[in-house]
Amino acid sequence: MELPSRLIEAAVDQMASLPGIGRKTALRLVLNLLRRSDEQVEAFSESFQLMRQGVRGCATCHNLTESDRCSICINPLRKESLICVVEDLRDLLAIEATGQFQGRYHVLGGVISPMEGVGPNDLNIESLVIRAGQLTKDDDGEIIFALPATMEGETTAFYLFRKLSSFDLQVTSIARGIAVGEDLQHADEATLVQSLRQRLPYTN
Amino acid sequence: MELPSRLIEAAVDQMASLPGIGRKTALRLVLNLLRRSDEQVEAFSESFQLMRQGVRGCATCHNLTESDRCSICINPLRKESLICVVEDLRDLLAIEATGQFQGRYHVLGGVISPMEGVGPNDLNIESLVIRAGQLTKDDDGEIIFALPATMEGETTAFYLFRKLSSFDLQVTSIARGIAVGEDLQHADEATLVQSLRQRLPYTN
Repeated sequence: MELPSRLIEAAVDQMASLPGIGRKTALRLVLNLLRRSDEQVEAFSESFQLMRQGVRGCATCHNLTESDRCSICINPLRKESLICVVEDLRDLLAIEATGQFQGRYHVLGGVISPMEGVGPNDLNIESLVIRAGQLTKDDDGEIIFALPATMEGETTAFYLFRKLSSFDLQVTSIARGIAVGEDLQHADEATLVQSLRQRLPYTN
Repeated sequence: MELPSRLIEAAVDQMASLPGIGRKTALRLVLNLLRRSDEQVEAFSESFQLMRQGVRGCATCHNLTESDRCSICINPLRKESLICVVEDLRDLLAIEATGQFQGRYHVLGGVISPMEGVGPNDLNIESLVIRAGQLTKDDDGEIIFALPATMEGETTAFYLFRKLSSFDLQVTSIARGIAVGEDLQHADEATLVQSLRQRLPYTN
């Protein structure tokens, strides 16, 4: 597909550099931008530059923030001794959306994936170990793994568990099991096995 | 979903303003941009502004171009008396990709759609009528409708046909029928009816 202008070509290339956006979709999006006014396209473009310049990782938990520390880390009502380890911001937002978690977070920035060339050193693990060293069981110190139920997520959890095993704190993982509203017959085998292994005393 | 920064919020809003991009997808794309360097995000953003500033519609056919007239309109090898009317650039590119069309184009910039508030005055119709007025049957003057096989495409074709009916030229439409490689049993009824109506003498 030969485009009638190198400027359009360059814009399509940039749009198609986003994950999951193919060149056909990129062209559709770029043509949509071409129908907008100069000011609208400027506002569109500037929003990404302003974000890139103004947003950084929280010095404590690596959540995204415009300040030195994020709004969760500076909130005195959030329990400092309870740290939920997540892969990225979207998982943090999903847990925050439940409104049920009163602790703080640690955003790894990914999971260990030899296939994609992501090793432990590429993730925010050292800072988690430092935070863990400040917790004790007497203070209800607990680290919760809320990592994806994939090979990479499990590998990462295992790696972190070994790194944290010498500390005086509890290490837990969110439950794997049948999703609320799901039929047993449609659940995959591995999930069913996990749900049986992790069975709990029945309460109403 | 409450985002941890107004700058991220603004970027997600802009990304989600693109057609077919929901807020969840927009967040995924924006987080991808946040992982890039300042320079990369600048190049990303600037590509759209440079395109918006440098690209305009061809004065003759409304194809996109960086000059006054597009590369097809200034190509003396393309037949001036044969004009293919398309909805937008993507349809033009699809026809160009076949390498089989030797005429020129007229890009309407949309189709008539009362549902979406697009009327004839929003489209490049007046300039088509002016071009049509310069053609004659003696010069093989022909206008081909290559418009979508939708209600809106048919409405637009009918409107154009009436506008062009007084001119001394041939008005044709691309064939509707069974797509190459398609089974009859999987074709929809309307397409089958059209393919029967538009049957041709069999040639090998």
